[in-house]
Amino acid sequence: MKLFRFGPADNEHPGVILPNGKAIDVTSFGQDYDEQFFASNGIERLANWLKGNTDFCPEVRPDERTASCIKRPSKIVCVGLNYAKHAAETNAPIPAEPILFFKSTTALCGPNDDVVIPKRSEKTDWEVELAIIIGKKATYVEKDEALDYIAGYALHNDYSERAFQLERGGQWVKGKSADTFAPLGPFLATKDEIPDPNKLNLWLKVNGELLQDSNTDDMIFDVPTLVSYISQFMTLLPGDIISTGTPAGVGLGLKPPRYLKPGDVVELGIENLGVQRQTAVAFS
Amino acid sequence: MKLFRFGPADNEHPGVILPNGKAIDVTSFGQDYDEQFFASNGIERLANWLKGNTDFCPEVRPDERTASCIKRPSKIVCVGLNYAKHAAETNAPIPAEPILFFKSTTALCGPNDDVVIPKRSEKTDWEVELAIIIGKKATYVEKDEALDYIAGYALHNDYSERAFQLERGGQWVKGKSADTFAPLGPFLATKDEIPDPNKLNLWLKVNGELLQDSNTDDMIFDVPTLVSYISQFMTLLPGDIISTGTPAGVGLGLKPPRYLKPGDVVELGIENLGVQRQTAVAFS
Repeated sequence: MKLFRFGPADNEHPGVILPNGKAIDVTSFGQDYDEQFFASNGIERLANWLKGNTDFCPEVRPDERTASCIKRPSKIVCVGLNYAKHAAETNAPIPAEPILFFKSTTALCGPNDDVVIPKRSEKTDWEVELAIIIGKKATYVEKDEALDYIAGYALHNDYSERAFQLERGGQWVKGKSADTFAPLGPFLATKDEIPDPNKLNLWLKVNGELLQDSNTDDMIFDVPTLVSYISQFMTLLPGDIISTGTPAGVGLGLKPPRYLKPGDVVELGIENLGVQRQTAVAFS
Repeated sequence: MKLFRFGPADNEHPGVILPNGKAIDVTSFGQDYDEQFFASNGIERLANWLKGNTDFCPEVRPDERTASCIKRPSKIVCVGLNYAKHAAETNAPIPAEPILFFKSTTALCGPNDDVVIPKRSEKTDWEVELAIIIGKKATYVEKDEALDYIAGYALHNDYSERAFQLERGGQWVKGKSADTFAPLGPFLATKDEIPDPNKLNLWLKVNGELLQDSNTDDMIFDVPTLVSYISQFMTLLPGDIISTGTPAGVGLGLKPPRYLKPGDVVELGIENLGVQRQTAVAFS
């Protein structure tokens, strides 16, 4: 099943993309895609509800804004330097264990919203990433049971302001948390749709030029390892996002480095998880 | 006004401590102390409601558990090394600008709950801190208007696992986010009760021995500076917590270093913000 959300930022609604590609409004199901939805077996309940109600759901107008595919969760946990070539391009050693950092959940936005270059930013950079959406509360999960705790997957652009992240006194969160720095979607694919999350092509273009082009099989720490590992340090809640790191080809790694300026167009995608398209704009 | 919350972890309720010290149950006000409460002028509405309703509110039984003084917010932003002597004891330079990191909001708990030493932890440490509770949405706030964005203040123990924080591959969040690592309260004092947050004694004892003993006037970056600074990098939401850093006297800084073991009792307090008491227990 493919879950998505639509509508203006202050009035978003849940929807489902049917196998035939039709996008329907499931507001009448009565629950948005939030922590409570995932915690209460929402995916299965929604699937059952659809059996009798699909025909009564209105189609979503194609001109509707696509929102983040889940409602604001308790946290966004990101993994740093999880592709060997990306670690190399940033002059960082291959990590011995996953590097974790958080992104403010206020950064979350729709997959095609403009990305706003923050005030005083000169180094706004892109990072195509596979995001895991947690399906149930996870504490001290073993690697071989990690998949049980996953609701599904989505495409994420982990926007990063490199000066804020690396030149402003330690701890990356400072460069990861600006508004619009976490476009998520266009949809959450439930895990049954993605038989092997560790074998997905992913790519990113800036103004049509292919800059990131890799496969999740290049990740240093794979999906089950990450869920298990993170759950040793904190409790993951239903709806929480784990962003699994980016492959080589970010602006910081180019020679010379290259960062976004107003008007630049960023397009990205992951196999079976759709595409995003953002236009960079100045803060106003 | 002093806001507190009470009841078992799965059934917490809002309360108010009256000027005479009596603790009353304000469940009938109809709203818990969450993002929506602060965003909708809840403190003023509650104060007005109390004028006609105080006498009808039941007293809270003294044997009730005290919960976190606010409901789980969107984020907990922490400031690192914000007291000069603490920076020195951890062998870190005085920061040129505030160091920021996040703590998972799942770490939040009541001020007198047991602190659970995580699995495989050998370096669980204490940090008494002044917490700021944000009152309204804050983006690019100027320092001279920062106080307008504050709802109040509370006592926070920013528990930290030093091996997870410092020896497990970068980014401090890993050592800050275990369950029970963020006891908050016993109450939120609205900002009118704390005329000068930059002049408050704060202290912490382990098994009766005074180990931290300082004043918030020793902070490198003061309260308005922190609110303004953080809001340059991310949007702060109503109810968000900023924990302003800890003074010298943490276990990591002792010679030899000293960490919590099951049975240890941690007591701490801040002038006009009450006291906390946690007993360390092993994970089970």
